[in-house]
Amino acid sequence: MAKEITPRSEDYSQWYLDIVRKARLADNSPVRGCMVIKPHGFGIWERMRDALDAMFKETGHVNAYFPLFIPKSFLSKEAAHVEGFAKECAVVTHYRLKNDPNGGGVIVDPDAKLEEELIVRPTSETIIWNTYRDWIQSYRDLPLLINQWANVVRWEMRTRPFLRTAEFLWQEGHTAHASAEEAMSETRMILDVYATFAEEWMAMPVIKGIKTVNERFAGADETFCIEALMQDGKALQAGTSHFLGQNFAKAFDVLFLNKENQQEHVWATSWGVSTRLIGGLIMTHSDDDGLVIPPKLAPTQVVIVPIPKPSPELSEAAAKIVAELRAKGVRVTVDNDDQNRPGFKFAEYEMIGIPVRIGLGQRDLAAGQVEVARRDTKEKTNVPLEGLGDYIAGLLDEIQQNLFDRAKAYRDAHITKADSLAELEDILENKGGFVYAHWDGTTETELEIKERTKATIRCIPVGWPDEAGQCVLTGKPSERRVLFARAY
Amino acid sequence: MAKEITPRSEDYSQWYLDIVRKARLADNSPVRGCMVIKPHGFGIWERMRDALDAMFKETGHVNAYFPLFIPKSFLSKEAAHVEGFAKECAVVTHYRLKNDPNGGGVIVDPDAKLEEELIVRPTSETIIWNTYRDWIQSYRDLPLLINQWANVVRWEMRTRPFLRTAEFLWQEGHTAHASAEEAMSETRMILDVYATFAEEWMAMPVIKGIKTVNERFAGADETFCIEALMQDGKALQAGTSHFLGQNFAKAFDVLFLNKENQQEHVWATSWGVSTRLIGGLIMTHSDDDGLVIPPKLAPTQVVIVPIPKPSPELSEAAAKIVAELRAKGVRVTVDNDDQNRPGFKFAEYEMIGIPVRIGLGQRDLAAGQVEVARRDTKEKTNVPLEGLGDYIAGLLDEIQQNLFDRAKAYRDAHITKADSLAELEDILENKGGFVYAHWDGTTETELEIKERTKATIRCIPVGWPDEAGQCVLTGKPSERRVLFARAY
Repeated sequence: MAKEITPRSEDYSQWYLDIVRKARLADNSPVRGCMVIKPHGFGIWERMRDALDAMFKETGHVNAYFPLFIPKSFLSKEAAHVEGFAKECAVVTHYRLKNDPNGGGVIVDPDAKLEEELIVRPTSETIIWNTYRDWIQSYRDLPLLINQWANVVRWEMRTRPFLRTAEFLWQEGHTAHASAEEAMSETRMILDVYATFAEEWMAMPVIKGIKTVNERFAGADETFCIEALMQDGKALQAGTSHFLGQNFAKAFDVLFLNKENQQEHVWATSWGVSTRLIGGLIMTHSDDDGLVIPPKLAPTQVVIVPIPKPSPELSEAAAKIVAELRAKGVRVTVDNDDQNRPGFKFAEYEMIGIPVRIGLGQRDLAAGQVEVARRDTKEKTNVPLEGLGDYIAGLLDEIQQNLFDRAKAYRDAHITKADSLAELEDILENKGGFVYAHWDGTTETELEIKERTKATIRCIPVGWPDEAGQCVLTGKPSERRVLFARAY
Repeated sequence: MAKEITPRSEDYSQWYLDIVRKARLADNSPVRGCMVIKPHGFGIWERMRDALDAMFKETGHVNAYFPLFIPKSFLSKEAAHVEGFAKECAVVTHYRLKNDPNGGGVIVDPDAKLEEELIVRPTSETIIWNTYRDWIQSYRDLPLLINQWANVVRWEMRTRPFLRTAEFLWQEGHTAHASAEEAMSETRMILDVYATFAEEWMAMPVIKGIKTVNERFAGADETFCIEALMQDGKALQAGTSHFLGQNFAKAFDVLFLNKENQQEHVWATSWGVSTRLIGGLIMTHSDDDGLVIPPKLAPTQVVIVPIPKPSPELSEAAAKIVAELRAKGVRVTVDNDDQNRPGFKFAEYEMIGIPVRIGLGQRDLAAGQVEVARRDTKEKTNVPLEGLGDYIAGLLDEIQQNLFDRAKAYRDAHITKADSLAELEDILENKGGFVYAHWDGTTETELEIKERTKATIRCIPVGWPDEAGQCVLTGKPSERRVLFARAY
């Protein structure tokens, strides 16, 4: 029940874990760092996936599937990639078990050692570009616009459900182009898709930006990102889109015959978002009573609760409302449980984040009305049965918009300019959020500021005005401010 | 081009590989036994997945996601399960790589050895039932009707794309029930779902049956299956639904408080179909000119080819047809390529299995008609533009039905009774297909017949009439005939 959730003000980190558990989103598993995504959590992911997948397809992409395993030697082929990625991976060394001759269950068969170890994919650039070599001969084979939905594994030492897990689910787009311009335009187009998805579906405002060299994806020439702000003032990288230049094409010898009949290396992008988005969703909207889900992503948008409990008459009325709502495309269920009391149920539905609750009581029904409670503001209103379908459809839109507006107001109020390191530190310590400050453009300075403040440069915002100034650390000239924050 | 496909009569096995490659369904990968599913193949899988997923949800199931890795010790817990499964698996032993100090790329870090090895899931009963222990306390928590879409790995020695690969994609349902009757009813209900999907979507007739003890899933008390017949007379197990009894509940201590307030072990089912279905689809319908796909599963159902090549006028006419067809829910594309000749394109579309091709020529257009070619029969017809949408929608239904009827006629003509071992052998050698023969019910006899004929008992058909007789091998009494066949 709600009272078992740790309040955010007391311990934000514990509050997050409580929400994940009590809203039935995920469970720990016996495998270190891996989680079980429960049906309610997976229902949200399915809706995210379907919405994104439709957007990818509308922009010309198709899905495919590449192997889970990557030969170890592939990871050495792109120099920057191996530096950034090859460390914390699950390594498959054997392909057979056998019964322990001493009766101790099963053991690994020492005779079944692989000649070359296989790595469980941490990301798939290497195996995909090794494959693209066979698929691309001429400019007529380009662009190649492929996405895959997959599980990946990165052996993280400190894990948190959804935000950082050893195994996670994601999509990874890998496109191939005949020119740098086209690849760059794809990279930016996908960034826009991600931002649109985050804002219109997740009701989570994001800032589009460019990563510094230091924060760039291993193997990329440029990394774009969307950055969101969580309720505790920490930033969350919610998606990345990489311009890979010709790096992977060179590492895997992927050449094409261009229109001028010359061999040229192919240009590449890659981009991804993951189940981490569910962590962002939780920390953007939820409160001390439980999960809050934007209606567009809620597996169930409306629950009808007969009060005090189901009866033939209330069930008949509920069925009519269900039919009316479904006709409007609303996802609605009826609570037919006759054991628990309404108060218990209300708390439970608040906990799991159903956007709208309809209380259906005998007396209300006689008066031709129902009680409608919205999860975002907790407001309750008596609404006439007549026209209820339109009212609810409109209310769901209003909740979706309200969640976005509320999150945006918070985010906007937490972008603060700082003109000195002391100011930057003060804001980080006492207010949180993004700090918009000048930086001299060097990795050295970036790392020094991180060392002192635990804040990283989240991004150089795209489309924000340039403004000359002086680096908050070194006083050296700066052409524009960048966004610092402590981050997940 | 079509001429590069090996005819079925010459080498069926090579024909299959040619179709997979030339219809762009899958590619080999650098990882032994793993394939790359190409966009065209994955598009078919997506449609299969969506159709099945909707059927699972209609029957009350929800999706979830469980970890890729299973602790090695879990596999030892269910005795029969470990016997049947624990052998050919990918084993993760380390969690980190490092740069080779001698400059040889990356090597496995010997200091990063796992305390307990992890197995890449070959199937998930063990980790799921370990989780269900925490989810189930009372009869009120039951039934638990969960499905997952996932990748699994079985280290097969001899692989064939789709039919048998080291990694494959599948769905695995895992349900928990309060009684044996309810679990058995779920097992059979899912068998019906699979049969309906195979026949109505894949146009692939199947026989529902029960596996012999010898062919049962490791850990099941009863395994039901759907069996299909391929064009070369070999059978294909297309899906299985297992009644697991209380075996996994006992192995993982999953108890519930029943309505009589007593602790009882939970009853279980599991069931799955995989990308193997794509292999079945190929071998049920395709021909020496390429792939044939039932319209319901075709990513593209209709292609419009301007003849001899695109022009403003033809494009305008094509756009009108596209609008009309899309309004009827038909998936249609226009070929805008102006390099290749119509003949080349026609062969290509036959190769990849587009169910209907519309040839759009200047002269035809002036006469108010188009040329419609259907993939299944190769027939071409001139069809008036007026009412083309309805014609095409009807034609797609007709093709779907024709493919099913054709496959069923072939299948039915290849179920042959045999009353002696000699007859059984003769049919297998010279005619192929299912042989319907008496068997004494023992594993010993089953294995002896397999040894002599390479045929296995595919199933004891469900709902077929009982008939007393004598075992073809031993002459011992038999209560009913069973279906033998050589199989994939």
